[in-house]
Amino acid sequence: MAVHNVTVERTLATLLEAKRYSTIKDILVTMNGADIASVFSTLDEETLPLLFRLLPKELAAEAFAEMESEQQELLIRGFSDKELKEVVNELFVDDAADLVEEMPASVVNRILEQADPEFRKEINEMLQYPEDSAGSVMTTEYVSLRSDMSVADAIERIRRAGVDKETVYTCYVTSERKLQGIVPLRSILMCRDNEKPISEIMDTHVITVNTLDSSEFAASQLSHYNFIALPVVDSDGHMVGIITFDDAMDVLRDEATADMEIMGGMTPSEKSYLRSNAWELFLHRIPWLLLLMVSATFTGMIITSFQNALAAQVALTAFIPMLMDTGGNSGSQASVTIIRALSLDELEFRDIPRVLWKELQTSLLCGSALAVVCFGKIYLIDRLLMGNSDLTVSVIFVVCLTMLLTVIVAKLIGCSLPMVAKRLGFDPAVMASPFITTIVDAVSLLVYFSFASMLLF
Amino acid sequence: MAVHNVTVERTLATLLEAKRYSTIKDILVTMNGADIASVFSTLDEETLPLLFRLLPKELAAEAFAEMESEQQELLIRGFSDKELKEVVNELFVDDAADLVEEMPASVVNRILEQADPEFRKEINEMLQYPEDSAGSVMTTEYVSLRSDMSVADAIERIRRAGVDKETVYTCYVTSERKLQGIVPLRSILMCRDNEKPISEIMDTHVITVNTLDSSEFAASQLSHYNFIALPVVDSDGHMVGIITFDDAMDVLRDEATADMEIMGGMTPSEKSYLRSNAWELFLHRIPWLLLLMVSATFTGMIITSFQNALAAQVALTAFIPMLMDTGGNSGSQASVTIIRALSLDELEFRDIPRVLWKELQTSLLCGSALAVVCFGKIYLIDRLLMGNSDLTVSVIFVVCLTMLLTVIVAKLIGCSLPMVAKRLGFDPAVMASPFITTIVDAVSLLVYFSFASMLLF
Repeated sequence: MAVHNVTVERTLATLLEAKRYSTIKDILVTMNGADIASVFSTLDEETLPLLFRLLPKELAAEAFAEMESEQQELLIRGFSDKELKEVVNELFVDDAADLVEEMPASVVNRILEQADPEFRKEINEMLQYPEDSAGSVMTTEYVSLRSDMSVADAIERIRRAGVDKETVYTCYVTSERKLQGIVPLRSILMCRDNEKPISEIMDTHVITVNTLDSSEFAASQLSHYNFIALPVVDSDGHMVGIITFDDAMDVLRDEATADMEIMGGMTPSEKSYLRSNAWELFLHRIPWLLLLMVSATFTGMIITSFQNALAAQVALTAFIPMLMDTGGNSGSQASVTIIRALSLDELEFRDIPRVLWKELQTSLLCGSALAVVCFGKIYLIDRLLMGNSDLTVSVIFVVCLTMLLTVIVAKLIGCSLPMVAKRLGFDPAVMASPFITTIVDAVSLLVYFSFASMLLF
Repeated sequence: MAVHNVTVERTLATLLEAKRYSTIKDILVTMNGADIASVFSTLDEETLPLLFRLLPKELAAEAFAEMESEQQELLIRGFSDKELKEVVNELFVDDAADLVEEMPASVVNRILEQADPEFRKEINEMLQYPEDSAGSVMTTEYVSLRSDMSVADAIERIRRAGVDKETVYTCYVTSERKLQGIVPLRSILMCRDNEKPISEIMDTHVITVNTLDSSEFAASQLSHYNFIALPVVDSDGHMVGIITFDDAMDVLRDEATADMEIMGGMTPSEKSYLRSNAWELFLHRIPWLLLLMVSATFTGMIITSFQNALAAQVALTAFIPMLMDTGGNSGSQASVTIIRALSLDELEFRDIPRVLWKELQTSLLCGSALAVVCFGKIYLIDRLLMGNSDLTVSVIFVVCLTMLLTVIVAKLIGCSLPMVAKRLGFDPAVMASPFITTIVDAVSLLVYFSFASMLLF
């Protein structure tokens, strides 16, 4: 949301009250579709259609494509058939398919009725790809060239056909729908020989993704190669569309958000925070809370079974939170690092021995440092300064040894679980802090009480 | 990393052993700079320069720009002055500036010596911008037009000047270095009137960022407006460069990674996981572990001060981990959600009353659900089924009431701390799980023992 929107919103509100529609129109046409959409997001159902109708056709479609689905639905319900027809047919096919996917059935029928027959067919084809597949985020509107065209022919074709295409900056050379090569508009323009055939300047080492590849994989391929657009082929090797950089950026952003939500112990949500009501937030959050609460009772059972030991050495209880927290934090450091590396394709399952070795070394360093600081702190402050004579050297030794071992175990669990999850086909992000914490809690208490039993009783 | 690199690496290794250099060259020239860089990343210091010298000039520069800094340094140290000159002057200025920033001083001097004088000046100018500012990620190589040029003039200029520019797809209309308008190459090409002046087709409502804005802000602006490139102006309003979509994607990816690392209780690292050694990982992880371990001792102090109460009602101890963990998880759900919304500019500080109200409602729902399940579980399973008669209804009631209140407090703390942090100019991601957990642990224990004292003794 751009900084200046707040001021624009206030100006519009004032002008609206004064019914200064032509001034409002003058302001709106200076704005970008994305900004109009965010200014419109706060309008009520009476003002929204009023202002929307002030927009010129193309800008209206651009703003419409950027709106949240609630606002889109509100508008469509107020549209006449003619207005709907105009907006729908001005959309890019991927935006139209997104719209159809998000609207309730009654609205969908109206949209498809008003789409031109050819456009309706394209929308329906797009809708057949599974959610989050490369096919579902691609657009079918790209510029295709033939390899025997000359540079001049190609420029002519781009000037003629380019108006409706989502990008003209990368062109695709096809023959019988098979992709033969890629040629950036830049290479065409830079070529000073107007008669040179496209086959001589095209790049035949093409990188493609399949319609059924994940949209995340496609987006990271595009980012890896710094492409403006990435071609998508079906299982027969026919070119069916392209994914453009702006859609890839949205995919990567949403994917990072979803990973963070899962890592925070929530089911991912497609709605932005302020648009979600408390009930929706509750539904996204309660499953993990319940699951983790129930699993935490195992930790409770461990404590119960050592209750007699604890009663004999009450001083031990005070260190439970510190040991559990440090273990949890150590484990979540490792799991977050590994989950992110997996999602950026920096790691594969076969790297697991290297990862375990690296984490073992790191955890020895971290664990030793923590144990030494812990020993010093308890001995100097708690025992000598505060005069807590329950804290014998044996007790402190048990605490610090537990600390060292917990950190090692936590980091090894934290790094391996996400890799195993990915190998088994689950989302590694599930193996983040909350999950790891619960396991590590149990482990740290078992270690603690075992050492205590061995060394103190 | 593309899937096929593994196979290519093996093929290259075999060919290398057989000294089949011309075959290796044939393979390499079919590849993309990014893939060559990732294949080269596993080569040793003898093989790397050998294979690098097989690459044609332009591809060599492209691959070089994509390499990790260790590999770059290795190569430069082996380069003759002539080789270094060729590679350096073939780089885009932003890549050259990145290189200079990452190399040790002795190498930097050699690089700058070999850069052409004009290029050296540009690199030095780039280096003056603060780290992570828009200025530091921009490139100064863009196509500028004059508003009185005709469409035909503009096309001619782009064809002539475009070779060295990072993008030709958006052109910038300037007068005395002030930005007057933006014109996409597409609009120029689509305009059928060759004599039309650029002033008539350019868009004068330009969106710019300042050199000193954060690179993250610039990247999210570019993504918001779906721009291929975003112009950067200095404080006098002079246009100094552009940020291209591929660099913006890298900024957003690195920013998301850094956020996740901070949220996982680590200081962010610029090196990929497999390239960091255990000592580097240790240094990134130990500060937070130490800090949080020391803060967790407060939780221990709370337990110590209630030790007599605990000794009287030992059953209470068993529920400590469950209450602490559920509190921590509830808090981290809220904080992760808010941190991400802040980083996507979906929230501002003035939204804090709405956020608190939403979290209060959500926490009432979550807390009540958890309390009810908790009551049922303890009463039915622990008390009736397992026959633990210590668990009186009063004890269970204390546990469940604590659960409800802890969830509410945890969510309110979890949502407000990141917003306050941002307001005070800190990175909100610092206020994620580990930090919140430590605070919530203390709060949940205080609530627990207060209820216990009131209701049980």
